[in-house]
Amino acid sequence: MKHLLTMADLQPEEIHTLIDEAEGFSKGAIWTPLRQAFVSNLFFEPSTRTKCSFEVAERKLGLEVIQFEASASSALKGETLYDTVRTLESIGVDAVIIRHPADQYYDELIEGCRIPILNGGDGCGHHPTQSLLDLMTIRQEFGRFAGLKVAIVGDIRHSRVAHSNAVALKKLGAEVVFSGPQEWFDENTNYEPIDRAVKTADVVMLLRIQHERHERHSGISKEDYHREYGLTLEREKLMKPGSIIMHPAPVNRDVEIASILVESDRSRIFKQMENGVYVRMAVLKRALAHKIGGRYHEAFAEKRAVAR
Amino acid sequence: MKHLLTMADLQPEEIHTLIDEAEGFSKGAIWTPLRQAFVSNLFFEPSTRTKCSFEVAERKLGLEVIQFEASASSALKGETLYDTVRTLESIGVDAVIIRHPADQYYDELIEGCRIPILNGGDGCGHHPTQSLLDLMTIRQEFGRFAGLKVAIVGDIRHSRVAHSNAVALKKLGAEVVFSGPQEWFDENTNYEPIDRAVKTADVVMLLRIQHERHERHSGISKEDYHREYGLTLEREKLMKPGSIIMHPAPVNRDVEIASILVESDRSRIFKQMENGVYVRMAVLKRALAHKIGGRYHEAFAEKRAVAR
Amino acid sequence: MKHLLTMADLQPEEIHTLIDEAEGFSKGAIWTPLRQAFVSNLFFEPSTRTKCSFEVAERKLGLEVIQFEASASSALKGETLYDTVRTLESIGVDAVIIRHPADQYYDELIEGCRIPILNGGDGCGHHPTQSLLDLMTIRQEFGRFAGLKVAIVGDIRHSRVAHSNAVALKKLGAEVVFSGPQEWFDENTNYEPIDRAVKTADVVMLLRIQHERHERHSGISKEDYHREYGLTLEREKLMKPGSIIMHPAPVNRDVEIASILVESDRSRIFKQMENGVYVRMAVLKRALAHKIGGRYHEAFAEKRAVAR
Repeated sequence: MKHLLTMADLQPEEIHTLIDEAEGFSKGAIWTPLRQAFVSNLFFEPSTRTKCSFEVAERKLGLEVIQFEASASSALKGETLYDTVRTLESIGVDAVIIRHPADQYYDELIEGCRIPILNGGDGCGHHPTQSLLDLMTIRQEFGRFAGLKVAIVGDIRHSRVAHSNAVALKKLGAEVVFSGPQEWFDENTNYEPIDRAVKTADVVMLLRIQHERHERHSGISKEDYHREYGLTLEREKLMKPGSIIMHPAPVNRDVEIASILVESDRSRIFKQMENGVYVRMAVLKRALAHKIGGRYHEAFAEKRAVAR
Repeated sequence: MKHLLTMADLQPEEIHTLIDEAEGFSKGAIWTPLRQAFVSNLFFEPSTRTKCSFEVAERKLGLEVIQFEASASSALKGETLYDTVRTLESIGVDAVIIRHPADQYYDELIEGCRIPILNGGDGCGHHPTQSLLDLMTIRQEFGRFAGLKVAIVGDIRHSRVAHSNAVALKKLGAEVVFSGPQEWFDENTNYEPIDRAVKTADVVMLLRIQHERHERHSGISKEDYHREYGLTLEREKLMKPGSIIMHPAPVNRDVEIASILVESDRSRIFKQMENGVYVRMAVLKRALAHKIGGRYHEAFAEKRAVAR
Repeated sequence: MKHLLTMADLQPEEIHTLIDEAEGFSKGAIWTPLRQAFVSNLFFEPSTRTKCSFEVAERKLGLEVIQFEASASSALKGETLYDTVRTLESIGVDAVIIRHPADQYYDELIEGCRIPILNGGDGCGHHPTQSLLDLMTIRQEFGRFAGLKVAIVGDIRHSRVAHSNAVALKKLGAEVVFSGPQEWFDENTNYEPIDRAVKTADVVMLLRIQHERHERHSGISKEDYHREYGLTLEREKLMKPGSIIMHPAPVNRDVEIASILVESDRSRIFKQMENGVYVRMAVLKRALAHKIGGRYHEAFAEKRAVAR
């Protein structure tokens, strides 16, 4: 079963293969399954980017998207996630994409369910398609991971992106350092003060601050956070030539990052979103090709042949 | 107009024809309307199974599904259901599927509306596609209805499934008995104590307990209900060889039925869901073929010819 | 960029061209873009008619509709509308339709966003596709605008339809008068008492009363409003031969208009809804043809050739 649950499940070769596939899709490759295929996006938390991005990816692959609204589902009648997925499987859904507030919600699913589960984010845990699109964006920029320094700035503990990315980046040969309010890190973290991190990194990867939560606990205001740990206009000037800014979005403008930098030359924030569609096409193809087969379309096959 | 409102509207011959059609779809029959056709699913109550099942059926027939979210519709501005349906009709929707908390909500619709209405459940009233999928599941198993004994267990009064099923099953020649807490039944009910019912029935059809409601009124806890009226592991052992377990779902595991039995050999619960798609394809075809025509596809027509 | 934000942006020639195009679609014209194209409907206020009508129009043009639920989007995490639209643009959405409670929400979008924005209603401001469908309905009926008298009855100030329509109708040569509770109008309004307006107008265009709001402020009950300013059965009898009744809906039956008149011979209320689909096809084609090209389909091209 070709689930995609965490980045830890993927070997470096598999990561590169998925990014290769995604690059093909970004260049216009067209692949569709051999028969009408159905998927459903089960989002139990708010999302625009991930949900819409999966839906665009699904439509580009010619899949039928069965609408599921968590807020109008039988989950309200107490149905478990397991029974919901088994139900969708029974009515012919070929794969499900799930975002859920519970860490590792998939543990209760993988034994009994017979369709691939693609993790669209679990609690404070994992978000593998976000990691893959981040990796794709970095590889596009630098052509490699080995020797790169990536600074991840923000609340690592509550971020399902940070941990997955750190694991994958190290596995692929990059150096990863963390920055932000020091009390958010423990002793084992590879910590660097923000100014040094910004100055030396090839990639400054900012995380979204769930400000409501932190203000209550730490008393740091948005303005203070921005001045002390955010990517201000001044700090951006310290960045190395050729280095880039990334952020999984949604961005708190003028908190993690000065608003004007979001659409600056260094920013790859909207490029990340674009790549997200291609990465999701790749993981959907991986999940479905295994089960029901599929084919590249002639127009594209020809184009490829000509290109050789 | 080919509405589908209640099981009482269907003659035994029509029921068999619909199940025959559904069996054809289960074997891969493909039918599509002669022109682009539009349907909309109006669900004013939570649903996963019925709503998603209708949507899969609709997509398999090549229909365009116009999304309607009750919670974001003009119903919030006080628009009546009649005006909502007339609106959808005016913009080109060819049929509507409706689930609504009001008993017989369709009474106010059928005179003025000019498109077929498929009842996806009304209040404590009817749920004809659930009945049809139940009947299809029973016919698949036993090849007949005459001479079968079906035990319906639970709160018949609040179930839109129980009454429809009882009427249809009797019309088709089966014997129907009811079981559960005796205070839920009146004198005219064909009542049997749970142990006798389970021991003698060919089909044990469990109903979902809306526990919140009942605990308040009757003081029966979930554990007590399960022990006194539920299908426990012990009771299942009393069942006749070849007899089956059914439940419309969502299941309250360990209330109506021991959790482990949900996916046991006797259980047809997930088979019921699968059949639901085919039954809904059949009723959608019935509604639309009448109005706009349609055709079976050659691939399938050939397959049929070869099969003869 | 072919945005559609307000009626003031359209010259009379453009209005006629859009209505001509819409008439073509009403007669079966089929146009599709040259490649798979994506749109998304961002409705931040309840809607049945406008949202479903846009969706039918989109499907008729063969567009992929990416579902966006405001209530489950990152808008909940504080994402701005600008960042939401930029996100959709980044993942490949080719045009967005937006309804939003803020007046002129589009002012913050048009500079930075690179995809067409079709205004589905902003605050108390504009609703250009509603105006276009109103104009199409009037032109169908009378073949012209010059010399017609249109009476708009109701709360002009809070209506995003009234102002747009008044501007457009005058530009096209019609006379426009307003009626309703006199305290809702200022001195510059071209006011007429309801009985005179109804008696002399070719088109009586009723507006929806947001009654909750007004009862609180003005103390007029529904019954009083109906009797004093509504289109009662008695007033309808005063109407000129050939004159018509219009209403953008949803209708408060027996407030703005006697219930029985909604579906009377004079009423074009459901015809307006039908025309709404064709008008929306025309504005979608206008937005997309410019950007990605498209073509009429042969079947239709032939039909046209034969018709000559």
